[in-house]
Amino acid sequence: MRTISENRCFGGVQGVYAHPSQATGTEMTFGLFLPEEADRSPVPVLWYLSGLTCTHENAMVKAGAQKWAAEHGLALVFPDTSPRGEGVANDEAYDLGQGAGFYVNATQAPWAPHFRMWDYLAEELPRIVTAAFPLDEERQSITGHSMGGHGALTLAMRLPGRFRSVSAFAPIAQPTQSDWGRKQLSAYLGSDESLWLNHDSTHLMTEYGFDGDVLVDQGAQDQFLTLLRPEALAGAMATRRQPGAFRVQRGYDHSYFFVASFIPDHIAFHAEALWR
Amino acid sequence: MRTISENRCFGGVQGVYAHPSQATGTEMTFGLFLPEEADRSPVPVLWYLSGLTCTHENAMVKAGAQKWAAEHGLALVFPDTSPRGEGVANDEAYDLGQGAGFYVNATQAPWAPHFRMWDYLAEELPRIVTAAFPLDEERQSITGHSMGGHGALTLAMRLPGRFRSVSAFAPIAQPTQSDWGRKQLSAYLGSDESLWLNHDSTHLMTEYGFDGDVLVDQGAQDQFLTLLRPEALAGAMATRRQPGAFRVQRGYDHSYFFVASFIPDHIAFHAEALWR
Repeated sequence: MRTISENRCFGGVQGVYAHPSQATGTEMTFGLFLPEEADRSPVPVLWYLSGLTCTHENAMVKAGAQKWAAEHGLALVFPDTSPRGEGVANDEAYDLGQGAGFYVNATQAPWAPHFRMWDYLAEELPRIVTAAFPLDEERQSITGHSMGGHGALTLAMRLPGRFRSVSAFAPIAQPTQSDWGRKQLSAYLGSDESLWLNHDSTHLMTEYGFDGDVLVDQGAQDQFLTLLRPEALAGAMATRRQPGAFRVQRGYDHSYFFVASFIPDHIAFHAEALWR
Repeated sequence: MRTISENRCFGGVQGVYAHPSQATGTEMTFGLFLPEEADRSPVPVLWYLSGLTCTHENAMVKAGAQKWAAEHGLALVFPDTSPRGEGVANDEAYDLGQGAGFYVNATQAPWAPHFRMWDYLAEELPRIVTAAFPLDEERQSITGHSMGGHGALTLAMRLPGRFRSVSAFAPIAQPTQSDWGRKQLSAYLGSDESLWLNHDSTHLMTEYGFDGDVLVDQGAQDQFLTLLRPEALAGAMATRRQPGAFRVQRGYDHSYFFVASFIPDHIAFHAEALWR
C-alpha cells in the first residue's frame, strides 16, 4: 500500500492510499479519515459509498463528514466506485463502466475481469484497512449516496452481522425496475433477471430486512426521483416494520449540498449504534 | 443577473449567479448562501475570498461553511478570484492572470483592462448583492484563504467601517517581500514598490490596524510557509496590540482540510461581531 496524501483534519488525519487489489486486478485508491482517538486505540468505522461518476475523492472533499466523525470518534472510509485505468473496460456513458461499478461482481464480457466491486467491498478492502489501520472490525456501519446508497443497503442486508447500522442518501432504491439499474445489471450480470434481485434494496428489504436501524433521506426536489424509485423502498420498509426512518426532505435535490446538510444526522445515527 | 444554480442547503439556499461587471468588463460569477432567516428579514453577510487557482466554487463545495452560516443566520458570498474568458489576458503560470487576481486594480499592460478585482469587491459586487438579495449592508464581515486571506485583510484595513470583523486562513501576509506577491504586484501595478504597500497586510497592520477583532489561523505544517510569511503579520499584530488572535495550528497544512477544520471557529467569531 502506498500513501498518496495525508492532511491534518479536525484533529485527525485525512489520508488517501492506493493498493493492488486481487478482487479487481487493478490498483485501487481509497480515502480514510482517522479521528484523533485512533492514536490511542482502534476506533469504529463508517463506510461511505459514492455515486455514479464519483471517485474516492468527491465525498471526502464535499460532504463535510470529517467534522462529525471527529466529534463522534469514528473513522470514515471512502472507497472508489469502480476499477479504473488502461486495460479496464469502459463505456462512453457516464453510468456504465468506470465510475459506475454498481457494487456487483460482473460475470459478463467485457466487464468480468475487473468489475468485482462486491468482493472488493465485502471482503478485500475491509481486510486491508483493518490490518493496516487502528480500526475496530467489530464496530462497522455503512452509508452512501445514490448508487452508493444502493451499495450500502445491499451490502448491509446481504452481510448480516457485519454492520451495526445502515443509512443512505437518495439511494437507487429499486434498480431492477429503473433505467438506473436495468441497463447496468444486464450489462454486468446478464439477462437472467433473477440474478439481479440480490442487488435490489427494495427486494432485499422485502425478503430479509436489516437487523439494526435503517435511516434513509430523500430530497423532495431530487431531479432523479423517477430513476431512484424511493417510494418502492419506503413501502417495503413500512411493510416489513423495519426499525428506522425513511425521511423526505422538503426542497432538497440530489447534490452534495443535500448530503452535506444531513450528514450530521447520519453520523450521529451511526455513532449511536457503534458506541452502544 | 442570471441564476446558474440554486440548491437547498442546511435549510437555506446555495445559489450561483452570474452578472455583467462594469469593474472587470466581463461576466463575473459568484456563489451566495442564504440562510433560512433571509426569508423573513435581511441577514448579515460574511464574504469569503479564495486563493490562487480557485473560482467561486472551491470554498463553496469544500470548506463546509454553510452548516455554520445556517446555525448563526449569516449569508456567505463566494466571489471569483479574477476576471475570466476569451479576450482576458492570462499567463501560463498558475499564480498570475486568470485565477490569480490578487485583489488589486491592475494599471499595467496587458492586465489593466480587466483585472480590477479591488473595485469589483470594494464597490461593485457589494452594491449588486445587497440590491438583489435580503442582505444587511450595515452588518458585513470578511474572511479568506491564502491569496484570499490577503484580500480579506487588505480590504478590511483599507475600508474602515465597512467590516465588523476580519479573519484569514494562512493568508499571504507580506506580499511585498515574497515571491507570492512581488511577481504579481510588479506585473499588475508596475515597478514602483511604494504603490504595492496598499496591498501588504503586514504594512497596513503596522500603519493602520483594524478597528475590530482580527482572527488569523496558520497551519504549522503549511507547505508554503516561506511564501506566506506569517511571522511578519503576527509580529505586526502583536506590535500594534491589535485586538484579536494569531493562532498556529499544530500539524495542519495549506489545504481545504485545514480551512474546513477551523471554519466553525471563524464563523462563530464573525457571528459574535455581526450579531452584537
